[in-house]
Amino acid sequence: MPQFMDVHHGMKGITAEQLREAHKQDLAVEREEGVHFERAWADPESGTVYCLSAAPSADAVRRAHERAGHLTDEVHPVPLSI
Amino acid sequence: MPQFMDVHHGMKGITAEQLREAHKQDLAVEREEGVHFERAWADPESGTVYCLSAAPSADAVRRAHERAGHLTDEVHPVPLSI
Repeated sequence: MPQFMDVHHGMKGITAEQLREAHKQDLAVEREEGVHFERAWADPESGTVYCLSAAPSADAVRRAHERAGHLTDEVHPVPLSI
Repeated sequence: MPQFMDVHHGMKGITAEQLREAHKQDLAVEREEGVHFERAWADPESGTVYCLSAAPSADAVRRAHERAGHLTDEVHPVPLSI
């Protein structure tokens, strides 16, 4: 399945617990869109969160995040990886 | 060791082979800066490459990429991850 990297902004001060909770919310709804959220990385200082997912499309990633309450308009396909 | 996500732009049309080669060049010089480049993801269409590394500092990541000929000024610490 294609992979995607999406980026969330405005999460300044996010804690490890909040990141875990947000990821749990994503996992709870991802199947409805055929998405799997694999990894997430966060920078509390700049408020940036990166999520790596496998999904049928960028729109599916957007919809899954939206269902979980984590809107993002920055979803980048990453067909190549190492 | 702290983790970092860095972003390269302007890589439109990058191939799997070019991504592998670039990663190999990074690996060849990373020890000189105490960095380890763990993963890389690329989108040939937008020309964006994301690299995940473990490093003593963002500057060390910048210097390691520079030694390998892959300048980037976008290096984000990601102290939290899942």
